[in-house]
Amino acid sequence: MEQPLCGIIPPLVTPLIDNEHVDVKSLERLINHLTEGGVHGLFILGTTGEEQSLSYRVRQQMIRETCRLNAGRLPVLVCITDTSIVESINLARIAVECGATGLVSAPPYYFATGQPELAQFYEELVPQLPLPVFLYNMPSHVKVNFAPATVARLAQMPQVVGLKDSSANAVYFQSVMFAVQESGRQDFAMLCGPEEITGECVLMGGHGGINGGANMFPELYVAMYNAALKQDIAEMRRLQYYIMKISSSIYNIGKHGSSYLKGLKCACSLLGVIDDDFVASPFYKFNQPERDKVRQALEALPIRNGKLDIF
Amino acid sequence: MEQPLCGIIPPLVTPLIDNEHVDVKSLERLINHLTEGGVHGLFILGTTGEEQSLSYRVRQQMIRETCRLNAGRLPVLVCITDTSIVESINLARIAVECGATGLVSAPPYYFATGQPELAQFYEELVPQLPLPVFLYNMPSHVKVNFAPATVARLAQMPQVVGLKDSSANAVYFQSVMFAVQESGRQDFAMLCGPEEITGECVLMGGHGGINGGANMFPELYVAMYNAALKQDIAEMRRLQYYIMKISSSIYNIGKHGSSYLKGLKCACSLLGVIDDDFVASPFYKFNQPERDKVRQALEALPIRNGKLDIF
Amino acid sequence: MEQPLCGIIPPLVTPLIDNEHVDVKSLERLINHLTEGGVHGLFILGTTGEEQSLSYRVRQQMIRETCRLNAGRLPVLVCITDTSIVESINLARIAVECGATGLVSAPPYYFATGQPELAQFYEELVPQLPLPVFLYNMPSHVKVNFAPATVARLAQMPQVVGLKDSSANAVYFQSVMFAVQESGRQDFAMLCGPEEITGECVLMGGHGGINGGANMFPELYVAMYNAALKQDIAEMRRLQYYIMKISSSIYNIGKHGSSYLKGLKCACSLLGVIDDDFVASPFYKFNQPERDKVRQALEALPIRNGKLDIF
Amino acid sequence: MEQPLCGIIPPLVTPLIDNEHVDVKSLERLINHLTEGGVHGLFILGTTGEEQSLSYRVRQQMIRETCRLNAGRLPVLVCITDTSIVESINLARIAVECGATGLVSAPPYYFATGQPELAQFYEELVPQLPLPVFLYNMPSHVKVNFAPATVARLAQMPQVVGLKDSSANAVYFQSVMFAVQESGRQDFAMLCGPEEITGECVLMGGHGGINGGANMFPELYVAMYNAALKQDIAEMRRLQYYIMKISSSIYNIGKHGSSYLKGLKCACSLLGVIDDDFVASPFYKFNQPERDKVRQALEALPIRNGKLDIF
Repeated sequence: MEQPLCGIIPPLVTPLIDNEHVDVKSLERLINHLTEGGVHGLFILGTTGEEQSLSYRVRQQMIRETCRLNAGRLPVLVCITDTSIVESINLARIAVECGATGLVSAPPYYFATGQPELAQFYEELVPQLPLPVFLYNMPSHVKVNFAPATVARLAQMPQVVGLKDSSANAVYFQSVMFAVQESGRQDFAMLCGPEEITGECVLMGGHGGINGGANMFPELYVAMYNAALKQDIAEMRRLQYYIMKISSSIYNIGKHGSSYLKGLKCACSLLGVIDDDFVASPFYKFNQPERDKVRQALEALPIRNGKLDIF
Repeated sequence: MEQPLCGIIPPLVTPLIDNEHVDVKSLERLINHLTEGGVHGLFILGTTGEEQSLSYRVRQQMIRETCRLNAGRLPVLVCITDTSIVESINLARIAVECGATGLVSAPPYYFATGQPELAQFYEELVPQLPLPVFLYNMPSHVKVNFAPATVARLAQMPQVVGLKDSSANAVYFQSVMFAVQESGRQDFAMLCGPEEITGECVLMGGHGGINGGANMFPELYVAMYNAALKQDIAEMRRLQYYIMKISSSIYNIGKHGSSYLKGLKCACSLLGVIDDDFVASPFYKFNQPERDKVRQALEALPIRNGKLDIF
Repeated sequence: MEQPLCGIIPPLVTPLIDNEHVDVKSLERLINHLTEGGVHGLFILGTTGEEQSLSYRVRQQMIRETCRLNAGRLPVLVCITDTSIVESINLARIAVECGATGLVSAPPYYFATGQPELAQFYEELVPQLPLPVFLYNMPSHVKVNFAPATVARLAQMPQVVGLKDSSANAVYFQSVMFAVQESGRQDFAMLCGPEEITGECVLMGGHGGINGGANMFPELYVAMYNAALKQDIAEMRRLQYYIMKISSSIYNIGKHGSSYLKGLKCACSLLGVIDDDFVASPFYKFNQPERDKVRQALEALPIRNGKLDIF
Repeated sequence: MEQPLCGIIPPLVTPLIDNEHVDVKSLERLINHLTEGGVHGLFILGTTGEEQSLSYRVRQQMIRETCRLNAGRLPVLVCITDTSIVESINLARIAVECGATGLVSAPPYYFATGQPELAQFYEELVPQLPLPVFLYNMPSHVKVNFAPATVARLAQMPQVVGLKDSSANAVYFQSVMFAVQESGRQDFAMLCGPEEITGECVLMGGHGGINGGANMFPELYVAMYNAALKQDIAEMRRLQYYIMKISSSIYNIGKHGSSYLKGLKCACSLLGVIDDDFVASPFYKFNQPERDKVRQALEALPIRNGKLDIF
């Protein structure tokens, strides 16, 4: 894998028939949609991909099918976050067998570790993994942050090739990037989770975005990435308007923390990118009233033939 | 299973050789130690049992071996907490096959659900489980509480037979007990996690304790339970002194959230109840300086032949 | 002041005409109601008394009027919690001038201190205070806990005479009590905030309760305290039913954190203990629909002539 | 006041002799230092200014002296955050008397309000204030966020002229900016607290920064602001290096949440901007070992004659 990995690597939603079966037809459509949309990689089994809600059989199926359907077109990153180090390693073995490009790992999320234990854990885990590893910072879901000094310590392992930060804390993003660079590591990918700030992160030295919205409109987020690369601020602000319009409407329906995931899957289904928007337990897909709101949110966007007509 | 389940049901530590193997010899010794100590049941794969840190193979091994070694002497409760409903059901099937008595389930702990989704999740899960179910309230680790009204709603399913509350919040314990009783359900077991307050919880209407300290000194917690049943306050206060002395020393070494687990396993090992005190990743057993402090804490207790000499 | 202070010391609601004026007539009625109800002290300007929402002029008025109206009948504790040490000392001077008996202080609540700074702060503050001091543990509002070791350290100052714990964490209550006793201090009052657990706290060695419900029904909480002193468990459970019925209805209306305060003040007003239930900004008293629910909750209780008819 | 207010408006540290006295000589030097450094306004009594730790007498003194020493050179914003609406209004009256330009208010920080109450509180407070008002988002200290929809609602009052966001959450910053613009309000100042991200916030449509580091090196943050205005990304990245170097060293000494404040005041004192670095209770200034570390952090910067020699 070329380092650092750059660009828009969408966290794929997992198209599901029910709690036990991937909808492979929809997955194929989704992957083609993303590839044609110009994204730079595929990231599966992340938070957006509902990894933790899926059985290991389904996780395995997602890895196999994604790698098969991608057929080498794009780098494939597989999230192996787990509370059990053994199961993380098992998932990594499947990933390498299937031809994945890299692994992504957030800290164990039942027990909350301190920073020394967190570092020790990754120093135990990483050498047992057969592929390059991206750390995944996701404090809202796993309860602990990777402290910047911990990332710098772990970046001394060449196999650790980047960080995906989903904290939304831009000071944290800058602090990690600075700490890693000061430690002498130059080829470390800094990837931004939230699409609302990927543009500015790239402008300030970040390498790309793991943006969920790209499941719907890959061209938008790719265009933002390219505008940031070209330092075209006027274009960035123009695109930012649509990014915020999506974020503040589609992800903002209902009152629970699951509104992002449900809204995104519902919109993908309404756009025809996937068939059903089944959400794995313990979440449940939107009922009709919320689905209608998502439809209205989509209708407020300049969509033509399922794509944003803004280019 | 006789309802409600009463008494001291220790959450067994999981004796480990390494991340992939149960130390079955130690497990046998531990089960005999607990049974001879007079406990009223065995609870495996809880937080004290490090369920989330163990591979599914090891979880399965713990279920099989515990049921085999117990040989029907005591009720066996198996924790099936998982982020995936499918894996929870899989564990439950193994439990029933092996002859377990009941199941225990804390909410999914990666995504945080709201109360309506939490209730819906259990209304989906419980009917698919082959044994009686105890809800397990553990907000520090799973991020959500079972609201009292949610417990009362779920208690309308006769298969839901009790709650284990590890919140340490005694107002919460009272509120749940009251809400369930007001809903008309009378045979609902209210079990207290923290040993420091099990006595008072039983006195005020609770049914027992899931007390980690019983791995070391089962007689102490059984005696507290019996004193509470007899409403012998003087005896309760006498025993409470030892319970607090253990809690404030053995569980209080080192600075991270893992000090309870490491201290408990280390003390069990020093007392000879288990061999090694291997703690599964992402935690690591105490080094020698902390181990020495645990030894000193034990030496400050009136122990004779591995038992508290206070009766 | 006799040490340790024991019994039920209600945290008085502050009867208000508006944000700037105490309703002195209602305050007089409230104090007489409490005194006749058999309480053992008065605690003003606590969380229930909305201290932080009141101007310093109103706080001063509450101190003066309460001491004047009490006329030496009961010990008066004055809460001087503030983010500014200077303002805390100013309030304490007014309290001693007016004849108050003791002071209560929760940690500064804007900046969150670590434990060493918290201890240092009280070692600076306490010697400048003219009266005995109770520490006030209120982590939900002030963001920091007094660690048990910090309480034990501060208890080495004889002027620190007790702790009011409003955490609802009964393990914490036991841990502090144990740490203080182990440190050699015997005359340290352990007072429980939540009325739902005051009985069991007293039974297990605590000294009393700062129970908001006593504003409505002082006899109930005094009876619980007396039953605990007499170790009359059957009576405690009988009384606990009413305590929980109040807690789960009157304090549980509306969805915000303010439902306790609004429900309590509204019920006091409906019972005629105070006139208006004006709540100081940034909270606002219940509107009619919620007020109707409080009325229904009261009607579900066996009240005769404004008192619980259960004795 | 011209709207929206733009540029670097440093949150002044409060130079103190002790808990009760402002060091006026140091304040004069600080104000001159900032003015000569090119800042666009002065912001006093914010979190960096330790408002909540100061007595009202000292707060008043800071307002009077700052306005007197500024002598009309720069806009002066006064923070009136308080838990009591009455005291907030009192501070605002003093501010207008002394000639301040605007007010800043974070939500009451003892009781945590829900969003409807938060909006209602400001709809009660703002009309009673004699100057334009900036909302101040500071969830780590006050426990509640202004939801984007709440800001948009409050922005319907023309007197509410901006928001200072200290959350460090750049998604939040974008969401508020979008919500306010969608509501039709165009002249609303979006000011960024953390200096580590002020550049990117301005680039993406923000109006300036309330940056604490400007107390030490005002030219640096003004240069970043200007580079962002000119969309000179190369210069921004060059300056960002120094901003991060300061942030990751000077603010990062010691382990408590107070390290930013203590490090900043200590550095100001070592640079001669203020005399003593007394920090008001409940915090305490650095001891010699930490002070030596701050000195080393400063020595690692290219400073000549007390200024960064990088232009």
